[in-house]
Amino acid sequence: MPRKLHLNAFLMNTGHHEASWRLPESDPYAHVSLEHYVRLARTAERGTFDSLFLADGPQLWNTVAQRPAGALEPLTLLTALATATEHIGLIATASTSYNSPYNLARRFASLDIISGGRAGWNVVTTAGAEAARNFGLDAEPAHAERYARAAEFLDVALKLWDSWEDDTIVADKAAGVWGDDARIHPPRHRGTYFSVEGALNVPRGPQGYPLLVQAGSSEDGKRFAARYAEAVFTAQQTLADAQDFYADLKARTAAAGRDPEHLKVLPGIVPVIGSTEAEALARERQLEDHIVHEHGVRRLEELLRLGPGSLVLDAELPDGLPSEDAIEGAKSRYTLIVELARRERLTVRQLIGRLGGGRGHLTFAGTPEQVADTIERWFSLGAADGFNIMPPVLPSGLDTFVDHVVPILRARGLLRTEYGPRQTLRERYGLPRPANQHLTGVPALV
Amino acid sequence: MPRKLHLNAFLMNTGHHEASWRLPESDPYAHVSLEHYVRLARTAERGTFDSLFLADGPQLWNTVAQRPAGALEPLTLLTALATATEHIGLIATASTSYNSPYNLARRFASLDIISGGRAGWNVVTTAGAEAARNFGLDAEPAHAERYARAAEFLDVALKLWDSWEDDTIVADKAAGVWGDDARIHPPRHRGTYFSVEGALNVPRGPQGYPLLVQAGSSEDGKRFAARYAEAVFTAQQTLADAQDFYADLKARTAAAGRDPEHLKVLPGIVPVIGSTEAEALARERQLEDHIVHEHGVRRLEELLRLGPGSLVLDAELPDGLPSEDAIEGAKSRYTLIVELARRERLTVRQLIGRLGGGRGHLTFAGTPEQVADTIERWFSLGAADGFNIMPPVLPSGLDTFVDHVVPILRARGLLRTEYGPRQTLRERYGLPRPANQHLTGVPALV
Repeated sequence: MPRKLHLNAFLMNTGHHEASWRLPESDPYAHVSLEHYVRLARTAERGTFDSLFLADGPQLWNTVAQRPAGALEPLTLLTALATATEHIGLIATASTSYNSPYNLARRFASLDIISGGRAGWNVVTTAGAEAARNFGLDAEPAHAERYARAAEFLDVALKLWDSWEDDTIVADKAAGVWGDDARIHPPRHRGTYFSVEGALNVPRGPQGYPLLVQAGSSEDGKRFAARYAEAVFTAQQTLADAQDFYADLKARTAAAGRDPEHLKVLPGIVPVIGSTEAEALARERQLEDHIVHEHGVRRLEELLRLGPGSLVLDAELPDGLPSEDAIEGAKSRYTLIVELARRERLTVRQLIGRLGGGRGHLTFAGTPEQVADTIERWFSLGAADGFNIMPPVLPSGLDTFVDHVVPILRARGLLRTEYGPRQTLRERYGLPRPANQHLTGVPALV
Repeated sequence: MPRKLHLNAFLMNTGHHEASWRLPESDPYAHVSLEHYVRLARTAERGTFDSLFLADGPQLWNTVAQRPAGALEPLTLLTALATATEHIGLIATASTSYNSPYNLARRFASLDIISGGRAGWNVVTTAGAEAARNFGLDAEPAHAERYARAAEFLDVALKLWDSWEDDTIVADKAAGVWGDDARIHPPRHRGTYFSVEGALNVPRGPQGYPLLVQAGSSEDGKRFAARYAEAVFTAQQTLADAQDFYADLKARTAAAGRDPEHLKVLPGIVPVIGSTEAEALARERQLEDHIVHEHGVRRLEELLRLGPGSLVLDAELPDGLPSEDAIEGAKSRYTLIVELARRERLTVRQLIGRLGGGRGHLTFAGTPEQVADTIERWFSLGAADGFNIMPPVLPSGLDTFVDHVVPILRARGLLRTEYGPRQTLRERYGLPRPANQHLTGVPALV
């Protein structure tokens, strides 16, 4: 069977462009509208996407003036979407820094059961002091420490998901024996960050573990991905960078003793689509015209660790910015943005325009053919196993992608034309169901 | 308008009788079956119940041999049920000892939004060392300390639910202003158990706060209920005890400065229903015959803090049991069980039979008329504002209640005949939508 694209729909209220909510068509209450998300999920399913995805962080940003703020809690929203869809995978972001393994492992197992094996977890360590201060900490934990905690969190979660063997329930009504206690394996974990004694209180789900996704591209992030991730979301600005990242991550996965085919790399793209190139560019300009630059300047200053007033709108970035090593949160995104500005000699205004669309992801204006060409080129030249589709405006941008780009991808044999029989999310991504570590003796992904 | 009963359907896999799963009709996988719970929710909605309810504890009990163990995480399951129902309230148990306020407040706000104002929270402090050991503790926190933490948890949760004023979102597209930062109120809470700095990242829900429910009847529990609870689930074995409890709790609520009408008392009943009294008693015997007594003895020994082999199946409880003061978990249930055994001079075998049905709740075998009579008597004689209906077998016991008891209650004018227009869960219980503490200056329920 020829290799097929994996498509993930990254859903975010009125769209990924920060000014999208200002368009006449946009619902400023979309972020709390179940109907809005049901419509998007069904559109993605019409486009035979593998999955849809919700980003998240447990904090409210410092201003609600600029753009829609806050979001329904992702696992809650995805549970509601599970009942409104049949085939599509459901990937929620959840933090290893601000959850306990027992509760979170149980919630993902519950979603996996309710959705018939369609749950995925985008594992994040959560940058930023705002989040830390909502959970009893005064400052953000150091980057390396967050990743050390994440690794232990994953080890505990795998133990919890394996704490019931698949055939624990014997249901012998005549003998009055419901389950076989010998097939329950309490983690009895005592580690640096967590002590978790008992077995999970929900049976092993259809997928064994939810699909494990990761999205940080720092050194720590890549090391973590090679060990635990089965799909990786990444922001890449050029084909060459994407190819390097792809090759590096596949090599690291093999070096970790895993099959590199069992880690799928999905760069994000923000496709601004028009029926002609001119129409696409006009659409892009319309969005840029709605950006409020004061907000953008202040946000960029925060990202670059600069005080208010440090940046000049029509000048380039100043010299002497700190190196990635000095940054404790979102390291790889920091480097990407600084390199983008330097490489293309962008003014602050231009940089804000570029970031406004996709916060560092590849923003691309063109016709459906041009979008499909880019996807095919990256896919065939070793830069991607699929894409994280980030429509600049929702729902219209997803409608356009599904109605006009998906048919081209299907005609080229790159994308399935229908789902066929029900499959788990792992099966859609070509991944095995993990064996139970208590039967294999090996607590590992493969 | 004459006073109406409030009915809550307490759902638990194959039913509240511990042997229910062994009946030929029962699905031993009901605990992980969304279809099972959807069917139950729709039946309760057909019976115009105010709400349905899921109990919970974050641990697996020490044996899966005896009966179905584990459960889908309640907020996850209720979110799925929200999409399958239209009117009924959705009450989830969640622990103040093993959650963080920021995450839990957000999840309840999200369910409240998704369900159109139908979320309720049964606030529990979670007894037992098993749970504690799943969250990094070696032993169960002391009873009084758990309640102190619960009170601070509630205070923080109320601050988080009030951190957005209702009209924060201004959505001025022309000016590029989405929200009014002056209407965001970060909690900036620094307390004994929690530090929570920032505003919630989801707007205030339709109900303001979810309906707040409480179920412990110890001294600490009643004090907590008088301050925070809007509905109280309670186990009462006699009309006189239920009247005392009702009067006491209403008086405490008034003493706390709240309207006693704004706290609803709902005793649990386990109705074993037959079309004749003989049929009901035969059904009860059928259930008792399926109890495995070794399990029951061991569980009773644990509850009474006795070592294995301390109890004799056909003798009464031994003398010299500890007083409630010495019990750190589930205090009021302990006293109820010991008093029940002493009052009726039950043998251990008989006590296990009585507890097998409803773990201390009023178990009652009779015809639909007799069940309706008991409900009406308790309701009209100052013992209850409604009932927590705990069918011994599910789904059949709920079907029978809705098909045969509900029509009698309706004919007597005690229960609504239809829902009428959509209402929030608070409106169903006759409770006001709480004002925002940042507008009133008073962080309190009324």
